Amino acid sequence: MKFTIQKDRLVESVQDVLKAVSSRTTIPILTGIKIVASDDGVSFTGSDSDISIESFIPKEEGDKEIVTIEQPGSIVLQARFFSEIVKKLPMATVEIEVQNQYLTIIRSGKAEFNLNGLDADEYPHLPQIEEHHAIQIPTDLLKNLIRQTVFAVSTSETRPILTGVNWKVEKSELLCTATDSHRLALRKAKLDIPEDRSYNVVIPGKSLTELSKILDDNQELVDIVITETQVLFKAKNVLFFSRLLDGNYPDTTSLIPQDSKTEIIVNTKEFLQAIDRASLLAREGRNNVVKLSAKPAESIEISSNSPEIGKVVEAILADQIEGEELNISFSPKYMLDALKVLEGAEIRVSFTGAMRPFLIRTPNDETIVQLILPVRTY
Amino acid sequence: MKFTIQKDRLVESVQDVLKAVSSRTTIPILTGIKIVASDDGVSFTGSDSDISIESFIPKEEGDKEIVTIEQPGSIVLQARFFSEIVKKLPMATVEIEVQNQYLTIIRSGKAEFNLNGLDADEYPHLPQIEEHHAIQIPTDLLKNLIRQTVFAVSTSETRPILTGVNWKVEKSELLCTATDSHRLALRKAKLDIPEDRSYNVVIPGKSLTELSKILDDNQELVDIVITETQVLFKAKNVLFFSRLLDGNYPDTTSLIPQDSKTEIIVNTKEFLQAIDRASLLAREGRNNVVKLSAKPAESIEISSNSPEIGKVVEAILADQIEGEELNISFSPKYMLDALKVLEGAEIRVSFTGAMRPFLIRTPNDETIVQLILPVRTY
Repeated sequence: MKFTIQKDRLVESVQDVLKAVSSRTTIPILTGIKIVASDDGVSFTGSDSDISIESFIPKEEGDKEIVTIEQPGSIVLQARFFSEIVKKLPMATVEIEVQNQYLTIIRSGKAEFNLNGLDADEYPHLPQIEEHHAIQIPTDLLKNLIRQTVFAVSTSETRPILTGVNWKVEKSELLCTATDSHRLALRKAKLDIPEDRSYNVVIPGKSLTELSKILDDNQELVDIVITETQVLFKAKNVLFFSRLLDGNYPDTTSLIPQDSKTEIIVNTKEFLQAIDRASLLAREGRNNVVKLSAKPAESIEISSNSPEIGKVVEAILADQIEGEELNISFSPKYMLDALKVLEGAEIRVSFTGAMRPFLIRTPNDETIVQLILPVRTY
Repeated sequence: MKFTIQKDRLVESVQDVLKAVSSRTTIPILTGIKIVASDDGVSFTGSDSDISIESFIPKEEGDKEIVTIEQPGSIVLQARFFSEIVKKLPMATVEIEVQNQYLTIIRSGKAEFNLNGLDADEYPHLPQIEEHHAIQIPTDLLKNLIRQTVFAVSTSETRPILTGVNWKVEKSELLCTATDSHRLALRKAKLDIPEDRSYNVVIPGKSLTELSKILDDNQELVDIVITETQVLFKAKNVLFFSRLLDGNYPDTTSLIPQDSKTEIIVNTKEFLQAIDRASLLAREGRNNVVKLSAKPAESIEISSNSPEIGKVVEAILADQIEGEELNISFSPKYMLDALKVLEGAEIRVSFTGAMRPFLIRTPNDETIVQLILPVRTY
């Protein structure tokens, strides 16, 4: 194998596939990055067996030559060293050549690295995915779907299925749900696919987070192919494979209250900042909660109390307070997480009593719902 | 105590004095910040008994009113909470009022915090320093003196005196020396004081690092008052006290070779980047070294070898190579540290053999010297 490649593109691809490489793996070759040079270009692959990422650099793009292949071939190089080395090479082009015994020469200007490589035939094959049907979603929408749900997955392995986001496709609609059983995030999106196609899978939260990091913010379509055990996201020159979580995702529709007893509409930023301030003292309190008091036709009060340190109270002018008077306590972290992913200047919070889950939404937007369970404080 | 103050100035002062506050202290009141409101303005003090910082906010600056004192007084507030609270307050002004039992109200807009304070009379007094004689150094020079030496102090407590920087004043010249016994940094500066004034003290490296962080980059003079046990730096509205280290600093003058057998002059940036690249593999090697080979009238070669991973070799065009042929090994970290604080496009390295300390300097600048001990590799 021997080729010359643009350094900036090499660095970018290596950084992308590096996101799938774990230093804690039981399969030693997976600490490496597989490089395959073919007549069309060079591909880089990283994997931790849960996630696999392949990034392809074509020989040419438009009229520009990016790679010059002198001899096709393949090699596996230690990911940690290879990624640090390419970042620090001195010139705009890099030559990579495999010699005898998998010894690999990396040359750039007057710098020459010799790295001991491994046989690429020993590298596990990527999942084979038959792609009869793909779902297509614009990259920016996909990133939003992830951002607005993935933060709510469970970080505890006691119920592994909750560490993933449930993707359910029914009647040309995608429904993404994440919950750690204390709060829930739900996001819907219309899909341009036949009504009778349906899926119901759980994608590991970690996979979605890593996927989101390597996708650029643009409107290009990402092809998504879902199988029994794997999901494949195909963006331009990047393939992202993730295994799916085994098991049935709990039915969460019954959790979401259909009616409400108290409704408030407030300025998102003012509300968020007041919760953020109250959380400063809540962190010390035994319950780690802030309290919200709403009196219709008056104002909303956010407060928190940490006996040893002190207390904080703040009034917020609501744009609307309707229904019953309410005193409710909740985790400020969950509230901040939910508020940060909602778009729009105003938010609507719908309560059905101090002990029932409540909903946070953007007025007139039914595609996203955040739900939080209150905390009993007595 | 009751006053109203500009939030941005309050935040700035609190952040400055916070640098002296440690959460790991045996004196509970030192986890707090002392606030004293007088007729002239408000002062804030933080201390960990080694370092004490006082920041003063005057009532007025130019024509602008910064503080309105309604009632003088004092209080100590928990540093961690107070500093986070003031950063997150909603409005441009803040009202701070002490009520009964040291209960302190912090108001800004509609947000109201009640913090349990402590009696300011319980707060330890700052060192009393008689300032007959002060040394004056422009702030930007002082920051350079610190930056170019403090990185070389020892981080090990086996010889506590080496965790500080030796400041020696003699014949109107300040000589700052730091060493961890593997490398040494030395910086001189002319002072505008009488020739017969002399000092020889050791300032803890940590104190100098924190001092440097709170000084702005400008040319205003900092007054430095040195006593037997303390040093005080007086900048505009800030007093920075540090205890001095006990003991005699070793005499390092004999360490510095007066002659040289091999001299090279190279481009600083090219040299630094080559060392940086070689260090990628050096980190894995048993000795953690890079090797430099210089052949007069030819070129310089930087290399490193880590048998399991691979090796790297790079030639550098030298502007000058004079004297004997040389092969020498050293820690790339020490070399990078030294190169980063040297100014100028070129550097001169003077060797006196593979086993002797060598010097790194900027050509024609005798005010700064970096010395590194080589590593024996056989």
